[in-house]
Amino acid sequence: MKVFVIGAHGQIGKLLVAQLLARGDEVVAGIRDSKQSAFFEDQGAETQLYDLNEQPEELAKSLTNVDAVVFSAGSGGKTGDDQTLLIDLDGAVKSMEATEKAGIKRFVLVSAMNAEDRTRWTAIKPYYVAKHYADLYLKDETSLDYTIVKPGALTNDAGKGGVVIDQQTGKIAREDVAEVLISVLHNPNTIKKEFAVSTGETPINEAVSQL
Amino acid sequence: MKVFVIGAHGQIGKLLVAQLLARGDEVVAGIRDSKQSAFFEDQGAETQLYDLNEQPEELAKSLTNVDAVVFSAGSGGKTGDDQTLLIDLDGAVKSMEATEKAGIKRFVLVSAMNAEDRTRWTAIKPYYVAKHYADLYLKDETSLDYTIVKPGALTNDAGKGGVVIDQQTGKIAREDVAEVLISVLHNPNTIKKEFAVSTGETPINEAVSQL
Repeated sequence: MKVFVIGAHGQIGKLLVAQLLARGDEVVAGIRDSKQSAFFEDQGAETQLYDLNEQPEELAKSLTNVDAVVFSAGSGGKTGDDQTLLIDLDGAVKSMEATEKAGIKRFVLVSAMNAEDRTRWTAIKPYYVAKHYADLYLKDETSLDYTIVKPGALTNDAGKGGVVIDQQTGKIAREDVAEVLISVLHNPNTIKKEFAVSTGETPINEAVSQL
Repeated sequence: MKVFVIGAHGQIGKLLVAQLLARGDEVVAGIRDSKQSAFFEDQGAETQLYDLNEQPEELAKSLTNVDAVVFSAGSGGKTGDDQTLLIDLDGAVKSMEATEKAGIKRFVLVSAMNAEDRTRWTAIKPYYVAKHYADLYLKDETSLDYTIVKPGALTNDAGKGGVVIDQQTGKIAREDVAEVLISVLHNPNTIKKEFAVSTGETPINEAVSQL
């Protein structure tokens, strides 16, 4: 499988690219800055400039000859809430539109646990607003074969390899999120589904293949 | 007609309340702060506390015995983009959900000219992102009898009384926007429609009644 990773240079993105390559999948790393290309090409990935400030028509030109698109970009905690709106919400939606324009069906979105439930947006509310509306757009305004992955609080711990599905609290290592995403890509039963995921006891591929 | 105005104490809201009362409509002014109540009660409006930080279930309790809801709240230019997400986008959507929960069908949303066309978001982009996704939600995720009014650049000029519909550039006085909203409320032909509006030559009610 050949996968385009939007936000390849992000924290989850880097882990995802490395794990996809290790597994034998092909990767196009979508990068914001050409200086990031060597990092990925040294690992054996292709790279493609992909600027979320562009319009969907432009973005679509980058999405050629891939089987699936993963959106793991995020504006991160260091930028303002304008970027939350422009990257986490509108950048995600522009990428969905671009994927449709490029004729690709499979789209995997990294969202956040409880994005659908406002009563649980206790902190970083703007981030949840952005995720909530990006999720809604993907489900209701596109015809993509989507999966929405909603990890709990992200950590930089080593991956544990086990998860629990649809628990409303919990943490998860970014390394495990990357493995979940790969498992999702390789399990078509996950199409048109969304699920929360956090650290647990069930081996990742077993949990994902039973969704 | 009895109208609940969300954002009654805003710039358009105040004009809208006054013009509705002058026309003989009944008004419930949705206010954020009980100190704002005298301003409206002196004019003959009812008031109701309506805090956009609340959940839809709470908001719905305020929306009783009215025929229509107008959302003219806005976080304004002085607050951060977190408020753009929380008020202009999620606050608007929570109000739609509350309106549905309250069993009211008619909902009029003040949006912005070109909110549907990203290529025209030349300035204040986060505001347009918020408006765009609030508009989409209203159209595609609710069963409300909506109208989406998309004024051009807002001014504090005296109202001119004339407009042009669906031009992609232009300005309009807030006083005229208020009159457009009233005309929309009294013209059921506007249900399930959205339109841009700016200053022009056609008398407001004539333009609106022909939508």
